[in-house]
Amino acid sequence: MKIVFHGANARAFEPGFASLLDRPHEISVVSDAADNVAERDAIAAAEVLIGVKHDATVPKPERLRLYHAPAAGTDGIDRSRLPPSAPLCNAFGHEYAIAEYVMAAVLNRFIPLAAADRDLRKGEWTLWPSRPNTLRREMGDTTMGLLGFGHIGKAVAARAKAFGMRVTVANRSPVSSPLVDQSFGLDQLPAFMASADTIVASLPLLPETRGVVRKEGLAAMRSDAVIINVGRGPVIDQTALYEVLKQRRIGGAVIDTWYAYPADVNATTLPGRMPFHELDNIVMTPHMSAWTNGTVRRRQQTMAENIGRLERGEPLLNVIA
Amino acid sequence: MKIVFHGANARAFEPGFASLLDRPHEISVVSDAADNVAERDAIAAAEVLIGVKHDATVPKPERLRLYHAPAAGTDGIDRSRLPPSAPLCNAFGHEYAIAEYVMAAVLNRFIPLAAADRDLRKGEWTLWPSRPNTLRREMGDTTMGLLGFGHIGKAVAARAKAFGMRVTVANRSPVSSPLVDQSFGLDQLPAFMASADTIVASLPLLPETRGVVRKEGLAAMRSDAVIINVGRGPVIDQTALYEVLKQRRIGGAVIDTWYAYPADVNATTLPGRMPFHELDNIVMTPHMSAWTNGTVRRRQQTMAENIGRLERGEPLLNVIA
Repeated sequence: MKIVFHGANARAFEPGFASLLDRPHEISVVSDAADNVAERDAIAAAEVLIGVKHDATVPKPERLRLYHAPAAGTDGIDRSRLPPSAPLCNAFGHEYAIAEYVMAAVLNRFIPLAAADRDLRKGEWTLWPSRPNTLRREMGDTTMGLLGFGHIGKAVAARAKAFGMRVTVANRSPVSSPLVDQSFGLDQLPAFMASADTIVASLPLLPETRGVVRKEGLAAMRSDAVIINVGRGPVIDQTALYEVLKQRRIGGAVIDTWYAYPADVNATTLPGRMPFHELDNIVMTPHMSAWTNGTVRRRQQTMAENIGRLERGEPLLNVIA
Repeated sequence: MKIVFHGANARAFEPGFASLLDRPHEISVVSDAADNVAERDAIAAAEVLIGVKHDATVPKPERLRLYHAPAAGTDGIDRSRLPPSAPLCNAFGHEYAIAEYVMAAVLNRFIPLAAADRDLRKGEWTLWPSRPNTLRREMGDTTMGLLGFGHIGKAVAARAKAFGMRVTVANRSPVSSPLVDQSFGLDQLPAFMASADTIVASLPLLPETRGVVRKEGLAAMRSDAVIINVGRGPVIDQTALYEVLKQRRIGGAVIDTWYAYPADVNATTLPGRMPFHELDNIVMTPHMSAWTNGTVRRRQQTMAENIGRLERGEPLLNVIA
C-alpha cells in the first residue's frame, strides 16, 4: 500500500516503521505544506495517511483506506475531506510520558531543588533542617484532582497513589476505580476544583469541553492549588486563566497545551493572545509532555497493527470516526 | 518525666508533642551549644533526651532513661557518654519525603521543564515535537539502582515501579522483594553500579559503609548515569566523586548529604573540601530531603509511643543500642 507520513510531527514516526509491518509497502514522507507537485500527488494517491492535520490546503485523498493520527487528538483533522469509507484512527501510548511530565511538575512545586542548589553553591544552607521555617509539605499528603479520566488520567492516578496521594476525578461518565477516592460529574465542576491541591486537565477538545474550565471553576480552586493542562489548551478559558494567575488567586499553573501554535516549525510565536510570559507563577512548555521515544514506539506499534488488520480485513483498533 | 529537646533540629519536633503523650511531662528545649547553666542543668537532669548530636561539650545525663534521635542516623551521638541502661532509639518516617525528593531529582533529569519554560517565554518552541531531535527518553524505560534497601530504598522502589522502572539493589544482606528485579551484594559493587541509570545511595554511615563508593565503583557507572546521595555523605569518597564529575565520566550527581556542615546554624559553609560548587553537573541541596511536616508528624508519633512504652515498662521500638 501507499503509506504517507504527512507533516513534521508524523515524520518522527517513520524511522523504523517499515520493520514493524508484515510486508514491504511504499512509504513516503511529505512536508506540512505539501507545496510541490510530488508531495500533492503523494497525498492524493495515499491509501494510508499518517498525520495530525488535514484540511483544504492539501488534495483530497480519494483512494484513502485509513487515516491514522499518530496521536490521541484528532481535532486538526477535517473528517469531511476524507472518504467516508476510510476510518479515522488515533493512537495512545503517550500516557506514561505525560504522567512523568505531570509528576515532575507537581514534585517541583513541593521540592525546591533549584533554589536549594543556587544557595548551597554559595555556602548558604537556607533550607537546612536546623533552621526555622524550612519544613516543606509532602506531596503525598495532598490531593490530585483529575479533570478527565482516560488513558492519561488513569496513568497519573496510578503514580499519584504510589506516593500516597488522595485522588479525585471529574469526568463526563461516572468513574469507579480503586485509584479514585472521590468522583464528580462535569456538572459539579466547582466542587471538583475545590477538592484538590493539583488539578490536571487531560480532556480532549470537543464542543462540550471547550472552555469547560472558566472563571467560576478557577475561582473555586484552593488558594495555593496549581492547575496543569496536558489535554488541549482551549479546554481552559484563556482570559479566565490569565486573570486568575495575574491576580494570584491560585498557586500557579503548568501549561503544556496552548491557544496558539507556530504556523511554521521554526517560527517564534507566543502561545496565546494573553501575555502569560509576563507571569512568574506559570511554567510554560511547548506541547512536549507526550514526546518520548517510548510514546513513538508504542504508537508505531498501534499503527503497524492497524495496517496489518486493514490488509487482513479485520476490525481496526482505536476507530474514532 | 523530664523531656529535653536538645538542639535546633530537635526543636522542630517540640510543637504539638505534648498533646501526643498520655500524660503531662516537664518538657524543655535547649540550644545546640547548651552554653548556660540552666541549659546544662536541664541536660544533666534529663530523663528523656531528644537530639541528633551528643558529645563531651554537654554534661553527662546521669539520670537518662532514653535517648531518642528524631532521625534515622545516630552517628552524631556518642553512646559512651550515655548511661548504659538508657536505650538509644531512632525514628524513621522520613522515607516518603526522601522518596519524593529522589523521584523529583530523577524526573528533572528526564523532563527539562525549566529549559522549556525559559524558551517558550520568548516564543521559542525549542522542544516542540514538530522539531527534529526533540524526543526525550522516558524515565520508566530506565533502571533505578538502590544502594541500600532499608526504609528509604523500599519507598523509592515502590514509586519507581509505579513508573514502570526496572529496579536493582545492592545491600549488605541479600534482598528478595517483588519490587526488585536484580540484587547484588556489597562485594559486587562495580557490577551493581553498572546496572542502572540512576544510583540512589541511602546507606547509614558505619565503619563498613564509609567510602564504600570509591573510584572503582564510580568508574563502573554508565556514562550518562546519575548518582544521588540521600544517606550520609562520606559513604561516597569525596575526592573520587569530585573527579568523576569534573572529568564528566558520568551524567551527574544530586547530593543532599555532605562532608562538611555549618558549625553554627547561620554560618556560611561550603559542604566539602572539594569545590563541588564549581561544577555544572551536580545539584547541591542542604540535607533537606527528609524535611517535611509529614516526617515530623510520623517521628513525633514514634517518640511519643516510645515514651508511653517506657512508662509502662514495655519493650521500645527502634532500639539501636
